[in-house]
Amino acid sequence: MKFSTEPDLDELITLVAKLPGLGPKSARRIALYLLKNRDNVMKPLSQSLAKVHAKVIRCTLCGNIKSNESECNLEKCFYSSKSYDQICVVENIADMWAMESTNVFQGQYHILGGTLSALNGSNPEDLLINSLINRIKKNKVKEVILATSATIEGQTTAHYINDSIKDLGVKVTKLAHGLPVGGEIEYLDDGTLFSAFKFRNSLVSD
Amino acid sequence: MKFSTEPDLDELITLVAKLPGLGPKSARRIALYLLKNRDNVMKPLSQSLAKVHAKVIRCTLCGNIKSNESECNLEKCFYSSKSYDQICVVENIADMWAMESTNVFQGQYHILGGTLSALNGSNPEDLLINSLINRIKKNKVKEVILATSATIEGQTTAHYINDSIKDLGVKVTKLAHGLPVGGEIEYLDDGTLFSAFKFRNSLVSD
Repeated sequence: MKFSTEPDLDELITLVAKLPGLGPKSARRIALYLLKNRDNVMKPLSQSLAKVHAKVIRCTLCGNIKSNESECNLEKCFYSSKSYDQICVVENIADMWAMESTNVFQGQYHILGGTLSALNGSNPEDLLINSLINRIKKNKVKEVILATSATIEGQTTAHYINDSIKDLGVKVTKLAHGLPVGGEIEYLDDGTLFSAFKFRNSLVSD
Repeated sequence: MKFSTEPDLDELITLVAKLPGLGPKSARRIALYLLKNRDNVMKPLSQSLAKVHAKVIRCTLCGNIKSNESECNLEKCFYSSKSYDQICVVENIADMWAMESTNVFQGQYHILGGTLSALNGSNPEDLLINSLINRIKKNKVKEVILATSATIEGQTTAHYINDSIKDLGVKVTKLAHGLPVGGEIEYLDDGTLFSAFKFRNSLVSD
């Protein structure tokens, strides 16, 4: 698709339009904004992209992103200052950031890099499951928290991981199902309500 | 604001969040998408930005964007194959693209680069008005179409340009005001309805 009379600008618009949440119209708007702010936005953005492309990589052990200058091994994998008693297993980095923003968990993260999915052809070898087993063994982890999404793929992945690590003598937990905060019972789906009832808590212990 | 544990990625997210229509959340999503598509999206995007930054500039005569390799002078200003009988004056490049997509106009464009605005401190010298006068004089233009927006700033700019060029012996027109296509009279604002009535057309001549 041709947007402007300038092929270089056209190429930029096509590339920007590929980004998630953006389409041709917003890409054109962004391209014009970049042209208007050549030196204070376009140039730094181009340099920043090149720098991130060159430097930031995914750790092959914990799955988190890291600068390729920083060391990342099983003993000190990014959150070296944090306790190694607990590992929280999440699907992707955005999930980790969401967990981080709640401040509820202070231990180590392990980012699988996706879920098992027959549809997308994603197999156990595509996820960092072997590396998780190694981390658990090496660091005498006491609890593994499976914080995968409540989707079929997420739950399948959690079950698969549970099967893989159940012989390591580590406690395996998963996130609670139930009412979302602010949720009204009248409008809840059956599955959530069923879980919320089944996993009801004693008021005293809460 | 800190988004991730990686300063380079943080910088990228901050820059992307500055783009129009994007915020911190969508910037994070885009950054993760870029990290996932390092070689097929992030690298080309970085290169494309650098190329556009280096090559694509605004023509100081017609206001359009051009590659700094291509020539652009008053005689052949981008749309050299087009007729020079008419010049359509628009505020910015997005307006020109909108006009282009209707295919209603085949002549030359002149992009002012904004509107006169006391609020934003934008003066006649900031817009390409002198260059417009030169283009009209040099190319024996017959009609100047003022296609500025129907906002106060747009109309002020149109009046200012009309005053500046009225002695050049060129016909000056502006876009029609009236009902938008699909508009219902019941819901139209007073100003639009007033204009639509005032500038009513004879059915025969249409």
